[in-house]
Amino acid sequence: MNTIKDLGEFGLIEKIKKLFDNPENAIGIGDDCAVLPFDKTNLLVTVDTLIENVHFFSNHPMDKLAIKAININISDIVACGGYPKWAFLSLSLNPEMKTSSLEMFFDSLQKNFSKNNIFLLGGNTTKDDKLSINITLIGETDKPILRSSAKANQDVYVTGKIGCAACGFFALKNNVTESNECLEKFLAPQARIDLIDKIKPYATAMIDISDGLLQDAMHICTSSNIGMDIFLENINLCESKHLSNIDKITFGEDYELLFCADKKHRNSLLEINDIKLIGYTNNSKKLIIYNKGEIIIPQKYGFKHF
Amino acid sequence: MNTIKDLGEFGLIEKIKKLFDNPENAIGIGDDCAVLPFDKTNLLVTVDTLIENVHFFSNHPMDKLAIKAININISDIVACGGYPKWAFLSLSLNPEMKTSSLEMFFDSLQKNFSKNNIFLLGGNTTKDDKLSINITLIGETDKPILRSSAKANQDVYVTGKIGCAACGFFALKNNVTESNECLEKFLAPQARIDLIDKIKPYATAMIDISDGLLQDAMHICTSSNIGMDIFLENINLCESKHLSNIDKITFGEDYELLFCADKKHRNSLLEINDIKLIGYTNNSKKLIIYNKGEIIIPQKYGFKHF
Repeated sequence: MNTIKDLGEFGLIEKIKKLFDNPENAIGIGDDCAVLPFDKTNLLVTVDTLIENVHFFSNHPMDKLAIKAININISDIVACGGYPKWAFLSLSLNPEMKTSSLEMFFDSLQKNFSKNNIFLLGGNTTKDDKLSINITLIGETDKPILRSSAKANQDVYVTGKIGCAACGFFALKNNVTESNECLEKFLAPQARIDLIDKIKPYATAMIDISDGLLQDAMHICTSSNIGMDIFLENINLCESKHLSNIDKITFGEDYELLFCADKKHRNSLLEINDIKLIGYTNNSKKLIIYNKGEIIIPQKYGFKHF
Repeated sequence: MNTIKDLGEFGLIEKIKKLFDNPENAIGIGDDCAVLPFDKTNLLVTVDTLIENVHFFSNHPMDKLAIKAININISDIVACGGYPKWAFLSLSLNPEMKTSSLEMFFDSLQKNFSKNNIFLLGGNTTKDDKLSINITLIGETDKPILRSSAKANQDVYVTGKIGCAACGFFALKNNVTESNECLEKFLAPQARIDLIDKIKPYATAMIDISDGLLQDAMHICTSSNIGMDIFLENINLCESKHLSNIDKITFGEDYELLFCADKKHRNSLLEINDIKLIGYTNNSKKLIIYNKGEIIIPQKYGFKHF
């Protein structure tokens, strides 16, 4: 345990959680957003960073990069059952960067802010040898949906198609051809803000798929102190042949929503377009993945940050 | 205007301001903090970034770096007349970094949070080749003090000693001896949270000195559409011989407070320890610096980010 690499991301987060108290009325470290309760509303706060050559390639088109930067944050707000409102942007820029590139970034960012009723209220700019983008996004909700409120004997659902971002990343990294759907999903993902009003009345717990479907499902299990059975054949998987099904459910960056709901709402939920019932919760505290009746033991569950 | 370097920081901020609308009831880009008005309070939000080898040297002691990282943000909240409450921390870390270094950083950060009643509510960690620290800090105030509300014929005050951080930086960069006061002021600055209750009843406009006393005074002039006469001999300048007086008032990083107040409050304000009357506002829209009756024309007014 001498370096950050040995400790790992979740070891690091545990260390931080232990050291810092939480105020009694606010929900802090460990969910997609922090929840700050006010008189008539709850503020949701999230912050995410994208660094050149860590999270994106240097040739990532700047208009798509802006879409990605804001949508990974919107996705956290949506996963807590809210709508985004105010943004703060920290940009580190190479002084030699072309202003035309930056204009392309800002035009696209502004269009996305406008579409989603987000106001840019502040931030800072600093020089660096490469580009990094850090966005703090504040949203609002009347009823926060947390990771920690799932119960046993509920249904588990996921929105959209899983694994396209993984296949898009693989194709770009290895310079192989891939469908536009996969490339777009990696380069310019869209948070599922379109589904939030439909899902919210039923969801008991929710998370966005940023680290991989399995790892994010595990986060709900751990936070809610439950187990899950997930059925691979029920997941709407990306059709690309470049990656295995296990890769598709462990890479992440899909920014789809994984949520639990009481079984009595199954008919209402299955009427919603683009939502699949993929499993059930239980009391086992274990996450088990079945493929046509066989248990699969994946070598990893999701993205490792260190 | 082909690169960011040509455009400069303030050109860049102007571009961003033009592109993004502000909501009618919130104060956004262009002050130390954004101000979000709520039923019974105003939230203040600020975000700042420190990058290894851009804002601090690699051998910056980790306990002092934590103090600097949080205090540069507290300083923005204080400059808007508020107290800090909730923090969000984004850390980029080299996976080979020693956990003992990180522990030193977190222990010091936690002590400072505890001392200032700040709660850490979230953030994110990511790998990179060097350390960078981005903190979003949310504070509260019953009455925000802005840069834009100074009037002509008011007094201009500054807290503390100016230029010590500049001399500390110079000494560390050039490996020359320097007083502990200067080194500490650069390595581990303390925001003037101690003075806020005393200043707040009188301040019409306020800013913290991060970019240099002159440049920050100019920000108040521009935002308030006024001018200022500032008298160098009235400023409590750092005694170090390593830098000129002009360097001391243009380097920044002092994190002292510069504010304006009605002349009728002069006696009350001059009774406060560690506050100096350094000039007067006027209608000229120009910032003029006098040294014993002579006008000084400085070659620069403050720190250039690009």
